[in-house]
Amino acid sequence: MLTQTGLISLAEVTDLNQLKLELSEVPAIDVGDYIEDLPEERRAIAFRLLNKGKATEVFEYLEPDVREALIGSLNDGQVHQLIEEMSPDDRAELFDELPAGVVRRLIQGLSLAERHATAMILGYPEGTAGRVMTTEYVRLQEGLTVLQALEKIRRLDRDKETIYYAYVTDNNRKLRSVVSLRQLLFSLPDAQIQDIASDRLIRVRTDTPQEEAAQVMMRYDLIAVPVVDSEDRLVGIVTIDDMVDVLEEEATEDIQKIAGVTGGDESSLSPPLQKLRNRLPWLLGIMGLYIGASSSISPFQSTIAKVPVLAVVMPLFSNTGGTVGIQALTVTIRSLGVGEVTPEDTWEILKRELQAGLGTAFSLGGTMVLLSLIWTKPEERWVALVAGVVMSINSLVAVTLGTLLPIGLKRLNLDPALVSGPLVTTMLDTIGFILFLTMITVSLNILGAPV
Amino acid sequence: MLTQTGLISLAEVTDLNQLKLELSEVPAIDVGDYIEDLPEERRAIAFRLLNKGKATEVFEYLEPDVREALIGSLNDGQVHQLIEEMSPDDRAELFDELPAGVVRRLIQGLSLAERHATAMILGYPEGTAGRVMTTEYVRLQEGLTVLQALEKIRRLDRDKETIYYAYVTDNNRKLRSVVSLRQLLFSLPDAQIQDIASDRLIRVRTDTPQEEAAQVMMRYDLIAVPVVDSEDRLVGIVTIDDMVDVLEEEATEDIQKIAGVTGGDESSLSPPLQKLRNRLPWLLGIMGLYIGASSSISPFQSTIAKVPVLAVVMPLFSNTGGTVGIQALTVTIRSLGVGEVTPEDTWEILKRELQAGLGTAFSLGGTMVLLSLIWTKPEERWVALVAGVVMSINSLVAVTLGTLLPIGLKRLNLDPALVSGPLVTTMLDTIGFILFLTMITVSLNILGAPV
Repeated sequence: MLTQTGLISLAEVTDLNQLKLELSEVPAIDVGDYIEDLPEERRAIAFRLLNKGKATEVFEYLEPDVREALIGSLNDGQVHQLIEEMSPDDRAELFDELPAGVVRRLIQGLSLAERHATAMILGYPEGTAGRVMTTEYVRLQEGLTVLQALEKIRRLDRDKETIYYAYVTDNNRKLRSVVSLRQLLFSLPDAQIQDIASDRLIRVRTDTPQEEAAQVMMRYDLIAVPVVDSEDRLVGIVTIDDMVDVLEEEATEDIQKIAGVTGGDESSLSPPLQKLRNRLPWLLGIMGLYIGASSSISPFQSTIAKVPVLAVVMPLFSNTGGTVGIQALTVTIRSLGVGEVTPEDTWEILKRELQAGLGTAFSLGGTMVLLSLIWTKPEERWVALVAGVVMSINSLVAVTLGTLLPIGLKRLNLDPALVSGPLVTTMLDTIGFILFLTMITVSLNILGAPV
Repeated sequence: MLTQTGLISLAEVTDLNQLKLELSEVPAIDVGDYIEDLPEERRAIAFRLLNKGKATEVFEYLEPDVREALIGSLNDGQVHQLIEEMSPDDRAELFDELPAGVVRRLIQGLSLAERHATAMILGYPEGTAGRVMTTEYVRLQEGLTVLQALEKIRRLDRDKETIYYAYVTDNNRKLRSVVSLRQLLFSLPDAQIQDIASDRLIRVRTDTPQEEAAQVMMRYDLIAVPVVDSEDRLVGIVTIDDMVDVLEEEATEDIQKIAGVTGGDESSLSPPLQKLRNRLPWLLGIMGLYIGASSSISPFQSTIAKVPVLAVVMPLFSNTGGTVGIQALTVTIRSLGVGEVTPEDTWEILKRELQAGLGTAFSLGGTMVLLSLIWTKPEERWVALVAGVVMSINSLVAVTLGTLLPIGLKRLNLDPALVSGPLVTTMLDTIGFILFLTMITVSLNILGAPV
């Protein structure tokens, strides 16, 4: 729906040459959407109208199942050419999706250089910079002049994913410095590149997690960052367009995990079965855990029979306390996620959360007393007071759990978003109910409060 | 903590020239962090060590209060030079933060061109492309050759924020086409730029919301997008580094709004008072709304006194039903937020959510029956059946509300994330409690079910 270009439907096409021209002028991603919207049997027709370079680009934007079907309907020569032209990182992603047998056949058709590049990327674990990097970058040898560097780029680097940074390496491919195309363009032709290049350069390693690479690029406003191996040899670059996608995926995952939706980024239009698979396990898990909360109420049934207004008041502090916990949880997870804080900041964060939490506890406790007075009979007014006290305590417990649980996971090198909202509300309900019902029962049976 | 460069503390500095050299080599954002960490009285000392260009860059990264203090401690000449050198969009942002009196004085010190550029940007509403664009872009007149274009860029565009795209305009500044520096570099020097430039170019308007501009850039993998006025005249460009920040802010806002935290992006380290201001209104609002839910239970107190196991079962389906609602809500808000779906897709989305919802309703209803059997006495077993039925119905209501409420807001051109999680759980509790307690009371009093 963000498409800025309109295309006619293939059914209305009378002149294939006209469509061919249209397709060559429209951005690749729009052509991709167009092809996906076509009936399956027409997709290959439209795809064959694309010129070589465009076909590769469009192919990279297609959905996995559409790609697989296309590979089936094109002839071997066409397929091999297509795969050969893809950038190594996109090719690695494609190979991840396809059946092993198909991949084996495709790899055999690749040139040695491309086969090597793909194998290298596939060798790094998913979610690392090594896996999302491209091996198509501009490398300059130390010792060139600006003019020589520009000539080299003009001659040899036409196909590189970005030419806006060039990386300078020594004879062992060790990364020494970086020079931007901008610097090359604004320098005198006979200047030495090592004189204008910067050797304080930002780099990530092949095993750097992709979110961290994205955050580094964001911090330093880079459109590409070099990736080096354990011996500081340059092996690839990560470009900003891939990193923007990583940031969006990570944000979606965080949001959905907090809400108790697992399995990566689910869309509104994901298939119903996938939705069910992403959500049901959490729901059943939460119900299972909630046996604890409900079982903690069960022994107090005689108390509730005596003071049924408890059943009116309990959902109120359960809902409110849960919200307090989720608020703190969400802010903590997000701050950890975007790298604003680390587990070292634990005490500073907890201090601030508890200071705010005191204000919350005081306000909500007071409100709880007032609201409870609506439903309590005159002789039961003391119940309102107990409810207020429990609401206050519950608020402080809520911010503490919402802050410490995700930080604790992060300390253990686990994903902080594993503590989802429903988990926190379940814990809070259990604690709150036991506290409340115990206080009420003690007031009734030991202190002899009236009902 | 993502800083890749270490700096010594100013207290340890014996040689200011050494520090000056260090500061000139470290990225501006790291220098900014370094200055912010210094005691207040030393910040101006360190800042004065920076050369002109670096000072401006560093200044743009400082926190608002640090900037204001610095403006106070530098002399007028230094301040005017600093402000003059800033890019118009960052200057506009600075002026937004400073007291009106200070801004007036600063504006008077600006050159006419910069004053004009800033006034134009400040004229666009916050949150639009016009407000985040920069007016420093490369513009080429139609009719130039590649060589002339490169010469023009080399001579006149040294200060432009990005030189990697050049925009071609006609005599009336109307945007005609775009050519990348890459294309210029790989073309023959005497080619006409209009022959290599693309006239199918992606553009946004000054009043395009910033999230939409960010999504367009993401879709088309652009590192800059031109901004045009209502008459299609080029007035600025938006660059990818600003858009990445916009995407991150929007994601944070969405996450936090769903959790009931208002007021933009709160960090774990935000001041406690701000935290309280962001969260308490929602909590009190939710408690106020919950009067409805609790009041709906109140009339059934005699039923609860007769069947106190109801108080054990009710929190279970309230917690679970709330989670079902928040799951659907979160997926919907995120899909709308990243532009994957629009309100036109309403029925398709609802269909899929309800199909998955049927599976959820069936599973959770069954589990509810089984779990309720734990706490019900033999003669109360029928309560478990009613609880299961209500759980199923509640699940279907939950996915419906979680899907339709945010889409409805979007249709009204409001922010879908205004329907926060706690709002949905409050609505679901009210509906669920009324349904459950009515069914139980009818079973007891009219059907004569045993207790």
